Amino acid sequence: MPLIRNINQTDMNPVQMDGVKGASMAVMIGREDHAPHFAMRSFAVEPGGHTPKHQHDYEHEVFVVSGQAQVLLEGQQHDLTAGDTVYVPANELHQFTVPEGASEPFRFLCFVPVEQNCGGPVPGS
Amino acid sequence: MPLIRNINQTDMNPVQMDGVKGASMAVMIGREDHAPHFAMRSFAVEPGGHTPKHQHDYEHEVFVVSGQAQVLLEGQQHDLTAGDTVYVPANELHQFTVPEGASEPFRFLCFVPVEQNCGGPVPGS
Repeated sequence: MPLIRNINQTDMNPVQMDGVKGASMAVMIGREDHAPHFAMRSFAVEPGGHTPKHQHDYEHEVFVVSGQAQVLLEGQQHDLTAGDTVYVPANELHQFTVPEGASEPFRFLCFVPVEQNCGGPVPGS
Repeated sequence: MPLIRNINQTDMNPVQMDGVKGASMAVMIGREDHAPHFAMRSFAVEPGGHTPKHQHDYEHEVFVVSGQAQVLLEGQQHDLTAGDTVYVPANELHQFTVPEGASEPFRFLCFVPVEQNCGGPVPGS
């Protein structure tokens, strides 16, 4: 059924994962909502925090809502700001890092397919 | 390959479709970028404008970036504001409408799968 929820009124949970610091997330639209193809997750990373430096067999499509960060892609750091969209192809090493001196959390949406290429559920979808 | 683009620095094209008024869009990440499962599109609808009142065999996942609008879902109008996420299941009648007196365009992202359930490409993916 249709669903309307606001990212600012949805409880977020700490991301418990090796290599993560100061990150929290909420699944806004996902498998539990019967989304058939892809899931929308809302993330916040505190100043000085980061997502894991990793790669996996599914892609990310990212939208930067607010704040500042850097993303590691193809071995290089790229500055990110509100309105940026990022495509992280499958099997691409990536990490989002927020500067220690940032004035606010880095907020972004990260979309993933609900199934991995091998057919299992994508974690956090 | 990875891709970083900003929605505020990307040219948008008028949406040429029956039932549309004052809407423009840009594919931020899509089939041409080899996105394998879903596409991210950026939309702007002018005050007094609207998207078509229609339904189709694939879902939408929507994020409201800025502005105000109403969305028709299940026969009712729902107010939308920045930070709202909307899940429009497949075959659900829907329309986004921006009030005539709105002070700014309504900006949103609309994600779609790249393939329809019957296997063909989703328009605008």
